[in-house]
Amino acid sequence: MSNEKIPYKIYLEEHEMPTHYYNLRADMEKKPAPLLNPGTGEPLTLEEMEPIFCKELIKQELDNDTKFVPIPQEIRDFYKMYRPSPLVRAYCLEERLGTPAKIYYKFEGNNTSGSHKLNSAIAQAYYAKEQGLKGVTTETGAGQWGTALSMACSYFQLDCDVYMVKVSYEQKPFRREVMRTYGATITPSPSNTTNIGRKILEEHPNTTGSLGCAISEAVEAATSREGYRYVLGSVLNQVLLHQSIIGLETKAAMDKYGIKPDIIIGSAGGGSNLGGLIAPFMGEKLTGKEDYQIIAVEPASCPSFTRGKFAYDFADTGKICPLAKMYTLGSDYIPAPNHAGGLRYHGMSTTLSELYDQGYMEARSVAQTDVFAAAEEFARVEGILPAPESAHAIKVALDEAKKCIETGEEKTILFGLTGTGYFDLTAYQKYHDGEMEDYVPTDEEIAKSLSSLPQID
Amino acid sequence: MSNEKIPYKIYLEEHEMPTHYYNLRADMEKKPAPLLNPGTGEPLTLEEMEPIFCKELIKQELDNDTKFVPIPQEIRDFYKMYRPSPLVRAYCLEERLGTPAKIYYKFEGNNTSGSHKLNSAIAQAYYAKEQGLKGVTTETGAGQWGTALSMACSYFQLDCDVYMVKVSYEQKPFRREVMRTYGATITPSPSNTTNIGRKILEEHPNTTGSLGCAISEAVEAATSREGYRYVLGSVLNQVLLHQSIIGLETKAAMDKYGIKPDIIIGSAGGGSNLGGLIAPFMGEKLTGKEDYQIIAVEPASCPSFTRGKFAYDFADTGKICPLAKMYTLGSDYIPAPNHAGGLRYHGMSTTLSELYDQGYMEARSVAQTDVFAAAEEFARVEGILPAPESAHAIKVALDEAKKCIETGEEKTILFGLTGTGYFDLTAYQKYHDGEMEDYVPTDEEIAKSLSSLPQID
Repeated sequence: MSNEKIPYKIYLEEHEMPTHYYNLRADMEKKPAPLLNPGTGEPLTLEEMEPIFCKELIKQELDNDTKFVPIPQEIRDFYKMYRPSPLVRAYCLEERLGTPAKIYYKFEGNNTSGSHKLNSAIAQAYYAKEQGLKGVTTETGAGQWGTALSMACSYFQLDCDVYMVKVSYEQKPFRREVMRTYGATITPSPSNTTNIGRKILEEHPNTTGSLGCAISEAVEAATSREGYRYVLGSVLNQVLLHQSIIGLETKAAMDKYGIKPDIIIGSAGGGSNLGGLIAPFMGEKLTGKEDYQIIAVEPASCPSFTRGKFAYDFADTGKICPLAKMYTLGSDYIPAPNHAGGLRYHGMSTTLSELYDQGYMEARSVAQTDVFAAAEEFARVEGILPAPESAHAIKVALDEAKKCIETGEEKTILFGLTGTGYFDLTAYQKYHDGEMEDYVPTDEEIAKSLSSLPQID
Repeated sequence: MSNEKIPYKIYLEEHEMPTHYYNLRADMEKKPAPLLNPGTGEPLTLEEMEPIFCKELIKQELDNDTKFVPIPQEIRDFYKMYRPSPLVRAYCLEERLGTPAKIYYKFEGNNTSGSHKLNSAIAQAYYAKEQGLKGVTTETGAGQWGTALSMACSYFQLDCDVYMVKVSYEQKPFRREVMRTYGATITPSPSNTTNIGRKILEEHPNTTGSLGCAISEAVEAATSREGYRYVLGSVLNQVLLHQSIIGLETKAAMDKYGIKPDIIIGSAGGGSNLGGLIAPFMGEKLTGKEDYQIIAVEPASCPSFTRGKFAYDFADTGKICPLAKMYTLGSDYIPAPNHAGGLRYHGMSTTLSELYDQGYMEARSVAQTDVFAAAEEFARVEGILPAPESAHAIKVALDEAKKCIETGEEKTILFGLTGTGYFDLTAYQKYHDGEMEDYVPTDEEIAKSLSSLPQID
C-alpha cells in the first residue's frame, strides 16, 4: 500500500491489532540492572515482592527473556473500546509551518482517563482479578494514573483505593470526581487510614502531602488487608511491557503505508510512554536491523537524563520501595513548586536508563514556558489541546520540523502525543496570564540531592 | 461485508467519508415554517439577514430544496483531523446488561471541544472566511459551542469574540481557558463593550447574566463593526445541515455491515445533534423506503416537545431575534436553577418541530437524577464519561435495552453520544454527594410562560 496517499489518521483494523506485548529487554544484550532489596542490597525475589504486588506482574517485572507476551483476550476486548489509537499525519501543522518534514503523532488521549496510562491500568487490573484479589491500591498525584486505574477496576469490578496527594485532592476536585464516577475510593494523603499516615499527620499536621507519602500509605493499605495488592503506573518494567502496545500499533500502521521514521520523540517522566512508543523501533535498532534517532524529552526543572547520575537509588521519596539502578536526581529531589508540566519523577525507568547509558538514545531538556508555547501552537492548528506532559515532545518535534525548513531535509518525524490537557487548565491559565516562570536547578542543588544516594555498587 | 463479525468500533476510511451534507428539508413534503421578521411578521429575506449572518449560511438557512450540498474541501480537510467519529458497538454494555438487544452509539466526543458542535463551527467559520470577514461573534452558556467556535476560528485565523454568560464565565474558568488557548476573546456578559450590555448593567448591576442577554451583545458586537457577523450553534436549519455529517457517517458505517437500526435515539435541546443523527434515516422514512422508531429525549425540567406548544415564538429570551414556529415553552421559560444537564433551550429546531408534529418521531422526557445514574452505569462499562446532555439519550437507550431483556426481542438500538462530560464534573459531584434534585415544572408554570407567545397565525 506504500504508494497510496497517506490518510490524515491511520487506524488499524481490529484484526491488525497487536496480540502480544513486546518485551524490549529480551533484545537487550546488557539487561537493566535488577531491583534490590533496600535492606539486604540483594536482588529482589518473587517471594519478597509477592505481599505487595500481583504475582503475574512480578513475573513480568523479572522476566528479561520472553520476547513476546500474549495479551489476554479480556484485555484485548477492553482495548477494543478505545484502541487502536490513531496515528495522525499532521498535514495541517506541516502546512502551517511550511516544513518539508513529514510529521506523525500517535495520539493516546481519546479515552476518559485522557492518557496512555489506561493501557497498563487495564492489564494490571486484569492480573489482579485473575489472581482472585478483591482490589488494588495506588497513589496518584495529578490524577491521570488514578483515573485510569479507576476505569480499569470498574470494568473488572475490583475495589480501587486511591491515595491522592492532599494538595491535588483539594486543587483538582474534578479529577477526583471522575474517579468517583468509576466507583473508586479516594483518600487525601496523608490520612488517618494508615499507620504511616497517622504518624506523618502527628508530626506535620499541616502538610499538604507528597507522592512519597501517598506511595507509603497505598503500600500499607495493600499489605495490611487480605486480598489487596499495590499497583504502580510508571517506571516499572511491567508498565513498559504493557505500554509497548503504543509502539506496536504505531509500527504496524507505519509499515502498512511504508513509512519509516527518521526521528522518534517522546516525553519522559518515569518512562512509561517513551518506553512504550519506542519499543519495537528500539528493538530493531538493538538488533541492527534499522537505525533511528530517538530523543527523550524532559523538563528543565526535572532533568534526570540530562543532568542526573546513573546509579542505584530509592524508587520513592519515602525510601521504602526497592532500589533501582537508573538516571536519578536523588530521591530527595523535588521540582520547584512553579513547575506545572508534570514529569516530576526524580528517576527513570531502569530499562530506558540502561539504553541511554549505552548510547541508544539521546535526551533533551526543555523550559516549561517553551513547552506551553509549543502546546498552544500545536492546538491551534491540529485541534487537540495537549497535556503539558505531552507538549514536551511537541516542543522538540516542532524544533526538528523547523530545522528541516532551513536544511530542506524531508525528515519523517514521529512523536508520542500521550494525552489531553483538559484537567490541566490551571497551568494553561498561568501561562496565558504571563504568570508562569521557568526554573532550572543549579548544579549545587542537584549535587545536594544526589549526595543522599545509597552506597551500592 | 454483512456476514463479518461487527467490530467494536466502525471507522469509515477517508474515501468513504461523506462529500455532501444532506438537507432533510428537501425530502419533507410539508416544509418547516419560515422565520419571521419580529417587526413585520413577514418571512425574513436574505437581505434582511445579511447584516447579521454570513451570506452563504443564510442561503443554506432558506434553502428547502437542494438535497445534497457539497462540503467544501477546506472543511473536509478539517473534518479529517477528528472525523470520522467512531460508530461503537456496545458489546461490553450489552453483556453487562444481559440484553439480547444490539446497541450502537455514534460518539462525537473525540475532539477538544468535546462534542458534535465542532461539525457546524468549522463550516460556519469557513463560510465567514470565504466571505472575507475579519471575524465572528457568538454567545456561549456552558461553553461547548464557544469552545468549538474558538477552535474553528483559530484554524482559519479569524477573530472569535465570545460573550459568555457571566455566571458561567466565573464558574467555568476552565472552559474559558480552553477558548483562550485557541486565541478567542472571551467577555463576561453583560459587559461594558456593548450598548445593550451597558444598559443592562445600569439597570441590574448585580446580574449574573443570561443567554438572552449574551445573544443580544454578540449580535450588537457583530453588527456594529465592519467585517464581523454573528453565528449560532444550534436550532437553525443551517446547523442541522452541517450536523447531517453525523447521520451520514453513521448510515454509511451501518450499511457497510448490513446493520439496520430499529430504534434511533437522540438527546434534544435545540436539535442540532438529533437533527444531524437522524437526517438520512428520517429521509428514508419520509420517502417511504424504510421505517424507524425515532425518539427525541429531553429533560423533564425543560420539556419543549412533550409539554410545549407548536407555535411561533421568539427564538431568544431578549426577543430581538426572528420568530420561529416551533415546539416551545415560551421564550420567558427558564429551567429551574438546579437543572444541571444542559438542553435548556425553551424552543426546538423548526425542522424537527414540524416532523414531530407530523408524527415522524416521538419524544420522552427524563428526570436528571435518572440521567446521571444512566451516565454512570454507562461510564463504568463502556469507559467514556458522557456529557450530561448525551446521557439523556443513554437513559432511554438503557430503558429500551432492558425492555428487550423482558420481551426477548433482539432489537438494534442506535443512539447519539454527543460528547464528553470533562467540564461538567460539578454536576457529577452534586449527583455523587446526593445533592442533585429533580424538577418538573407544574402545568401552571408552563401555561404562564406560554402566555407570552406572540400572536401570529
